Amino acid sequence: MPTPYTFSQRAEKITSSTIREILKVTERPEIISFAGGLPAPVGFPLRDMNAAFDRVLGQNGRTALQYGPTEGYTPLREWVASDMQRRGAGQVGTEEVLIVSGSQQALDLLGKLFIDPGSNVLVEAPSYLGALQSFSLYEPNYVTVPTDEGGLIPAGLTDERVRDARFIYALPNFQNPTGRTLTLERRQALVQRCAEAGVPVVEDDPYGDLRYAGEALPSLLALGRQAGATVVRLGSFSKVLAPGLRLGYIVAPAPIISKLVQIKQATDLHTSTLTQMAVYETIKDGFLDEHLPAVREIYRKQCGYMLEAMQAHFPSTASWTQPEGGMFIWVTLPQHIDAHELLARAVAQNVAFVPGAPFFADEARHNTLRLSFVTVPEARIREGIAILGRLIAESHATTSAATAVKPEAAESVPGAIVAGAESTTAAARSQAL
Amino acid sequence: MPTPYTFSQRAEKITSSTIREILKVTERPEIISFAGGLPAPVGFPLRDMNAAFDRVLGQNGRTALQYGPTEGYTPLREWVASDMQRRGAGQVGTEEVLIVSGSQQALDLLGKLFIDPGSNVLVEAPSYLGALQSFSLYEPNYVTVPTDEGGLIPAGLTDERVRDARFIYALPNFQNPTGRTLTLERRQALVQRCAEAGVPVVEDDPYGDLRYAGEALPSLLALGRQAGATVVRLGSFSKVLAPGLRLGYIVAPAPIISKLVQIKQATDLHTSTLTQMAVYETIKDGFLDEHLPAVREIYRKQCGYMLEAMQAHFPSTASWTQPEGGMFIWVTLPQHIDAHELLARAVAQNVAFVPGAPFFADEARHNTLRLSFVTVPEARIREGIAILGRLIAESHATTSAATAVKPEAAESVPGAIVAGAESTTAAARSQAL
Repeated sequence: MPTPYTFSQRAEKITSSTIREILKVTERPEIISFAGGLPAPVGFPLRDMNAAFDRVLGQNGRTALQYGPTEGYTPLREWVASDMQRRGAGQVGTEEVLIVSGSQQALDLLGKLFIDPGSNVLVEAPSYLGALQSFSLYEPNYVTVPTDEGGLIPAGLTDERVRDARFIYALPNFQNPTGRTLTLERRQALVQRCAEAGVPVVEDDPYGDLRYAGEALPSLLALGRQAGATVVRLGSFSKVLAPGLRLGYIVAPAPIISKLVQIKQATDLHTSTLTQMAVYETIKDGFLDEHLPAVREIYRKQCGYMLEAMQAHFPSTASWTQPEGGMFIWVTLPQHIDAHELLARAVAQNVAFVPGAPFFADEARHNTLRLSFVTVPEARIREGIAILGRLIAESHATTSAATAVKPEAAESVPGAIVAGAESTTAAARSQAL
Repeated sequence: MPTPYTFSQRAEKITSSTIREILKVTERPEIISFAGGLPAPVGFPLRDMNAAFDRVLGQNGRTALQYGPTEGYTPLREWVASDMQRRGAGQVGTEEVLIVSGSQQALDLLGKLFIDPGSNVLVEAPSYLGALQSFSLYEPNYVTVPTDEGGLIPAGLTDERVRDARFIYALPNFQNPTGRTLTLERRQALVQRCAEAGVPVVEDDPYGDLRYAGEALPSLLALGRQAGATVVRLGSFSKVLAPGLRLGYIVAPAPIISKLVQIKQATDLHTSTLTQMAVYETIKDGFLDEHLPAVREIYRKQCGYMLEAMQAHFPSTASWTQPEGGMFIWVTLPQHIDAHELLARAVAQNVAFVPGAPFFADEARHNTLRLSFVTVPEARIREGIAILGRLIAESHATTSAATAVKPEAAESVPGAIVAGAESTTAAARSQAL
């Protein structure tokens, strides 16, 4: 018998992830899960969205259910363009906007557009795992840019690093996984450097509107246009409205959008007409200006509960970020503690989080982990953080005594794609890593 | 100054299409357009869908707006599995079903899964243009399989053709662009041959439920399972409910679905939870069994109007298919008439269609064209067909006299991707080629 099928080389390289395997258990109701990246469902504007779907289906139903243009629903594209202008990006034309099926799709389209096998792609260390997975299907060579508390370090964009890079992928606001924000000076230095080097900047900003502390900073799009850099900005309605809609957008120079339209047409024809029309119907009259303060308040409180609990329960040998927005806190443990091994012990105590190693495209730091504070009730946050704090302290004691560290037990998955979980709820929870 | 960006080689290969340029004019209301592939909006179950969205948002809104599993909404996957069983595919498990964002996305995911640059992919001559565009981004080597009135010719699957083929892409029912149906004997021979040769069959069947004449034939999935062939079946809700939803599915052996889930996760995380839940809510209690006969009746009548008009107005030197379902009629003109050149003259008379050449992955037949009868009112069909008939007859006269033929004016776009149109309506019309 011949073999029944042969996969492509890129597909063969996809590996399953033991982390997702572990996280499958987070479905169990007794688990306190700080893993996953789900937005707070109490922030979804259910009644407004329901009314919007009703109006669209009632008034323009046959248009909403018909095929639509690949570029997206024109009024929504116009809304995005004027929103960018309102935020200081200067004149933005509708032809510079493409509507996509969530900004994860934007990553895939950009991979198709820019990456040949072996192309250099610059990413922060650490960076969004979903982006690494998406780009990896186009087989790039990742070049990592060092980061610190102020985000990526522009001085790290050495001639050697930027040479032949197809783009740099940056998350300037409340980065996933670290929660860090790129400082204004570094934003300016970054776009300046990219303009000089002829390297496009892909600015991924799903969380920018979830700022609950500090001052909003200009986008890389706004600064890059002034500096003459090519900036491709990714935006999403997942965190400001609801992720289940799968709606996002790309803002970029028209020749890039034009090529992306051709690519998207071959990829999925277009994004749901109905969804685009209903979202436009929801937001067209300034809805977000009223809605977002309430959402930010939810996230601010949740973040506060977790930071407070960490302060009370984590040993002084651990350090962590103080996010000004978004969904995540990044923890650095003492060098000898492997977060992957810690996860196994935490799950045994009904607590889950995501180890930091998979977020590094190379040279994974195994003593890091990511906590999401968004969807867990206050009392459960305290309870879970107390358990984690105790386990970290115990690791310290144990490993100090035994000095037995197994870094190879953790995962370092540059280019590896992680497996989908099997059960519905677990899969949903671990979806948006 | 350095160049501001470098595209991937696959992106550089995408070319704009003069056909789409011409078809942009089909937006003008005076144009009678037999181009495009839009389903009939009178067939969209607007009230039922509206009620379903209402119920889902009212009863399960926060789940519907949240991230969901990559595999798809479990009840919808179960519905698909049992629908396949009902149609004779034997036992089909939920783990053999993946929900996708329209079956165009299925083509993209299959390209990612199966195609390495230079891999052989077998396609019918002609085949669905959107599939050629989608696969082409993965840079396959197309090997075409000859077809006739009975669909693809299994005897054409010679050892030479099937050697190292990653899959064969087939549209067995009312094929786009020809409207032809693969006979039962050929279905059996096809899956038998593929089982022996170890070549998976990708069965794309968006139109199967739109049969308005003749007897339904078993799917390649059903026959293939009996013959031991690997069949990947693509289904769509675009033609049975509405295309603007962007909802389809893949049925395949679990190891293939499992890999596709990993790929889809990196590509767009998952398909809209709300859309999946609302579609499930619409169809779960047998809605399609009542709805489809009415839809088929619309298509049957429309097809009849066009065939009647062609019989009356087309010269006897042209021949065309007699579809038993679906949306398209395929016309073969006398050898010396170039359909691309005919289109230019037709558009000058306010009539549009799609020339056949781009549907061929190689050796384009320039004397062919595709007509869609679905969305044009009866009187306009007669009017448009009369004009086309006259133009064809005139070509005959002219070119017989001058014997001036310019086949190179037509397009043969193996692997070429066509440009998106700019205006909203035109783009929507020419979307689903």
